[in-house]
Amino acid sequence: MPETFDVGLLGHGTVGSAFAELLEQRAGQIEAITGLRPRLAGVLTRSRGAYDELLAGSDLIVELIGGIEPARRYVLDALRAGKHVVTANKQLLAQHGEELWATAREHRVQLRFEGAVAGVVPVIRVLQESLAAAHVDRVSGIVNGTTNFILSEMARTGAGYDEVLAEAQRLGYAEADPTEDVNGADAAAKMAILARLAFDTPVHLDQVRYEGIEHITADDIEYAQELGLGLKLVGTAERIDDGLSVRVHPAFLYAGHPLASIAGPFNAVTIESEAITEMTLSGPGAGGPQTASAVLGDVVSAMIPPASTPETTQRLPIVEDVDSSFYLHLEVADRPGVLARVAAELGREGVSVKSVVQKGLGDRARLVLVVHRVAERSFLEAVDAIAELDFLRSRPRFIRVIEEEYV
Amino acid sequence: MPETFDVGLLGHGTVGSAFAELLEQRAGQIEAITGLRPRLAGVLTRSRGAYDELLAGSDLIVELIGGIEPARRYVLDALRAGKHVVTANKQLLAQHGEELWATAREHRVQLRFEGAVAGVVPVIRVLQESLAAAHVDRVSGIVNGTTNFILSEMARTGAGYDEVLAEAQRLGYAEADPTEDVNGADAAAKMAILARLAFDTPVHLDQVRYEGIEHITADDIEYAQELGLGLKLVGTAERIDDGLSVRVHPAFLYAGHPLASIAGPFNAVTIESEAITEMTLSGPGAGGPQTASAVLGDVVSAMIPPASTPETTQRLPIVEDVDSSFYLHLEVADRPGVLARVAAELGREGVSVKSVVQKGLGDRARLVLVVHRVAERSFLEAVDAIAELDFLRSRPRFIRVIEEEYV
Repeated sequence: MPETFDVGLLGHGTVGSAFAELLEQRAGQIEAITGLRPRLAGVLTRSRGAYDELLAGSDLIVELIGGIEPARRYVLDALRAGKHVVTANKQLLAQHGEELWATAREHRVQLRFEGAVAGVVPVIRVLQESLAAAHVDRVSGIVNGTTNFILSEMARTGAGYDEVLAEAQRLGYAEADPTEDVNGADAAAKMAILARLAFDTPVHLDQVRYEGIEHITADDIEYAQELGLGLKLVGTAERIDDGLSVRVHPAFLYAGHPLASIAGPFNAVTIESEAITEMTLSGPGAGGPQTASAVLGDVVSAMIPPASTPETTQRLPIVEDVDSSFYLHLEVADRPGVLARVAAELGREGVSVKSVVQKGLGDRARLVLVVHRVAERSFLEAVDAIAELDFLRSRPRFIRVIEEEYV
Repeated sequence: MPETFDVGLLGHGTVGSAFAELLEQRAGQIEAITGLRPRLAGVLTRSRGAYDELLAGSDLIVELIGGIEPARRYVLDALRAGKHVVTANKQLLAQHGEELWATAREHRVQLRFEGAVAGVVPVIRVLQESLAAAHVDRVSGIVNGTTNFILSEMARTGAGYDEVLAEAQRLGYAEADPTEDVNGADAAAKMAILARLAFDTPVHLDQVRYEGIEHITADDIEYAQELGLGLKLVGTAERIDDGLSVRVHPAFLYAGHPLASIAGPFNAVTIESEAITEMTLSGPGAGGPQTASAVLGDVVSAMIPPASTPETTQRLPIVEDVDSSFYLHLEVADRPGVLARVAAELGREGVSVKSVVQKGLGDRARLVLVVHRVAERSFLEAVDAIAELDFLRSRPRFIRVIEEEYV
């Protein structure tokens, strides 16, 4: 029997229950990496469980109840008892972070919080580890998925704020009471945490200026689109002379800005520093499984010191023939029946045509086709057959197409 | 005097000399984080230095000489001597990684290699730590900056491959002998390393199928643009049934693909998994300072176990008034002199107009302006003055603009 690593869970809402499920699913892989078998020691909710008992039986506490109290007290008790803590509680850290971090240092335990900022985007780890020694100049982020969804939909459909907010609520991208998201307060808490890490300076939520998106009109977005600008709710933390500015407000971005292409309920953070130029991390904003995955990454990190690359435990065979969609470019003689013969060769190998365009005339005639996903070997055999057709003026050219139905 | 941490450096080319400089610049901050003062113990180049001596006097070896031998022997000797190693050598890892990783495990030292893949993009750390317990389905990457620059320029200018390659060489984005970049071999080595980490399966460079971009014509790119497709050199590592496919080839991407917006000499990697949906990391491809920064992050990580958030060492004051560019939307009565009076109020506060558009007529008349960067306080005072003008039909509305000259 392997040694176990006991995880005490506080909270069993969307994220808590997703975490409990993920921990069980991935226990085998975690054991392979760490040599310890993770096990859920118990769950404390508002109505069930005794904290002292749970704490005594746990090696690490995962705090997912949110809010300030009793979360703050639970976390402090755990750190003082010498247990590692993983939390996704941005309000707690933005308001009481220094107290909690000092307690963790004093008791030589880890307090990890990747899930508190930007969902699945691993910006905390990157700031604390990859860029620990970097001189950061600016951190800019889209750190609230609800508002980014609303602004993206307003731009895409031309609909007004109220209408799109109602749609976001219907789709589950906005809460029944969306105040903290749409007024910028949620983003402000996250920017306080990012600023603290990037600039190694205490930053409290009260020091972050913020504005929300409630006053944005469809007109603003439409006129700005004509100017090549897209609207985002942007959090900024930047050095200005020898000071630090931390703020959240709607902002128009030019098309070349690294955050300009972030659409829908996504989060992204760009970090700038002279040595690295810039780095952008993006992914879905907080959702149950996404935040649970960030929390699990923290739990695994707390279980082991940074090991060298572990031995491989899989032996997946390497696959040679894969399915692809293709773009196919044929220079052909301009005469009747050409397309039919090409289509027949494709059809013989089971390759189906998605779109075809005829370009040019006479000596410059060419067919440009896009075909649906098919085994590459079949497509290549069809191309070899097409290459033999007497009306081809040169070798067929083809390039793979990665389909829109990407995820 | 603080205890020192001695770093032995192998190689003193572009990356090596940038690393030596960065280590000296950041030594104070590293000492604040780790409690140890990093120091360059010595530098070994082809023509200078004795390895045995350097190794004996170092706590950690940074290998930046590249190639297989003598790099392989040096790294093995260091690991066997119980020293941590940081390397940016992708060929070494793609061909001899299992031997090196096994040696590091056996001697309980770290072998870190963030700089080997994707320049500043911290994909190694994210795969090994944040996603250590994740079940990854696919890793897709633009992992060669030279080819991404060439394809971006071909798309932007309509110029041919040879012409753009010559420009890339002139700008320093392509080597004098660009073969390994343009034929896909460089990207293949990086994808072998990423596949090994993401799928926990041994992957050797020889198992990666690759094609380059030498055969791409301006025509292909132009026709595909009409279809809404953009061309990238894409590396893919994905589960297919119970196997693994690792390959590099040119591919057209639809505009919604997370890699579609990556332009110029940039790298980006998208990781997909059911729990996280997807995550994309992007930044400049390998350059001297960028790779040196990734190497430095590895050195700092090797110096300490993952600590809790260190105490803050800075006390940056919080800046309230910042400079911004603004979009300003005014609903006005449609009569002569309106623009002049608005411009006068802006001018009084030193606010200069970048562009102005008049929209609508009569009751629907409005002015939409974009103004240059100015202190926010000055702009707000100008807006207050404009709000008092008798021809205003409603409160002025304004939104910040983040300028194109972003970095």
